Amino acid sequence: MTEKLSDAERDGELKELLSNGWSMVEDRDAIAKTFEFKNFVEAFGFMSRCALHAEKLDHHPEWFNVFKTVKVTLSTHDVGGLSPLDVKLAKKMDALA
Amino acid sequence: MTEKLSDAERDGELKELLSNGWSMVEDRDAIAKTFEFKNFVEAFGFMSRCALHAEKLDHHPEWFNVFKTVKVTLSTHDVGGLSPLDVKLAKKMDALA
Repeated sequence: MTEKLSDAERDGELKELLSNGWSMVEDRDAIAKTFEFKNFVEAFGFMSRCALHAEKLDHHPEWFNVFKTVKVTLSTHDVGGLSPLDVKLAKKMDALA
Repeated sequence: MTEKLSDAERDGELKELLSNGWSMVEDRDAIAKTFEFKNFVEAFGFMSRCALHAEKLDHHPEWFNVFKTVKVTLSTHDVGGLSPLDVKLAKKMDALA
């Protein structure tokens, strides 16, 4: 069962993400990152690759796209905040970008 | 060259869209619609089909997705408001949903 990120995980993996372009969302236990690409094809290609992984992980992003920009927000609805699933998906998205 | 929607087009095709789930965005010459699907696969499938058409049309939506919901906003940056391209893409999206 998924649980909220532990203090140790926040000091470790989460901190690592925060030093890699992710930031905490105001008033929510969630992280966000804006990805910029060359054009729409690159941006939507990234979203498509992420979508397949998100579905496999059964954990989905909140995301906004306009042309070559993709703004992603991650949080885990079931636990009301960040869980290890968000860390996993964030790392995967960084790798896919 | 793309131009802003004429008054006649606003009274015709735009009005038709507004009676079909689209609404004017506050403080912007733009239209928006929220599409709901059964699940993420259906929602992202819709986005993928729209993306191919948007790219072909060389006119792209602003859109937000979380799980099975897709919120679309359409406007034409180059003309600073609604153009026939938005009407075309909106109709296509309705057909694809």
